[in-house]
Amino acid sequence: MSKNESKTAIQEVITPAELLKHWQGHRSLTRRVIEAFPEKEFFNHSIGGMRTFAEMTLELLAIAGPGLKEIVTKETQALNEHIDHKDQKNLVLKLWDQATEEINTYYNQITPDSFHNTIKTFGQYEGTVISSILYFIDNEIHHRGQGYVYLRDLGIEPPFFWER
Amino acid sequence: MSKNESKTAIQEVITPAELLKHWQGHRSLTRRVIEAFPEKEFFNHSIGGMRTFAEMTLELLAIAGPGLKEIVTKETQALNEHIDHKDQKNLVLKLWDQATEEINTYYNQITPDSFHNTIKTFGQYEGTVISSILYFIDNEIHHRGQGYVYLRDLGIEPPFFWER
Repeated sequence: MSKNESKTAIQEVITPAELLKHWQGHRSLTRRVIEAFPEKEFFNHSIGGMRTFAEMTLELLAIAGPGLKEIVTKETQALNEHIDHKDQKNLVLKLWDQATEEINTYYNQITPDSFHNTIKTFGQYEGTVISSILYFIDNEIHHRGQGYVYLRDLGIEPPFFWER
Repeated sequence: MSKNESKTAIQEVITPAELLKHWQGHRSLTRRVIEAFPEKEFFNHSIGGMRTFAEMTLELLAIAGPGLKEIVTKETQALNEHIDHKDQKNLVLKLWDQATEEINTYYNQITPDSFHNTIKTFGQYEGTVISSILYFIDNEIHHRGQGYVYLRDLGIEPPFFWER
């Protein structure tokens, strides 16, 4: 809660600043899950024919920054999950940190009265600004939970879920 | 969005009614994930020393209804994850549906101006009403994502994540 937020804002269910903090808290945890993977298994390990955690991470990177940019600029973005990571986890982490900054920049351009505006993300997913942002966050929690199983399967203890 | 909600309410990031719908949408998907498990594997299958999906489901049942009841009544609830389910999935589903009603009943007693009230759930977890409810939802998404891996590991296709 920033000092600039008025008393009125606190009467809301959640303020814009709180939602951003909530989102970035989740992203910080996901970053630590990526870090917890051994380099090789990040790119290779999977269960039941599912994607690797690297592939899931690329999906998350394709959604968060570009999706939010689209919401703010209203310019349709392509969903690009094919990033040249050269099988190097540090490159993926660098992209993750760039996305963190991109999200902060664009999020703060969303006006408080526009969270219910109707939008279509990536040229196909219809919703509102708030439903889209919640989807981005929920989708990340969903896949990160899958990453926890991969880590446990590899005998690695994941970071605590409640630490953000 | 109910017709009773004023135009002013729509200026919020998310309204109380929207948050409840969002939560129950997630709970509806989790119910379908429970249904997708074969009876035996619901209670027995796990990966990497983790809990079974039945045990995770009991945690979710212990949190959602009782946690919300505590928020509204301000009476401390014990976290009770030990429910006599008799290894019968239909009993767990019945408890799930009872929790759905319990959540609707108590949620609608939360006044819109109280989402930032400070609370301590289950006698130990400090937060606000909104941070606690978001934790309940996020924790469910997290464990349900793990259930998806269990299902894939069993060769079963889980329900679509985006269908609520």
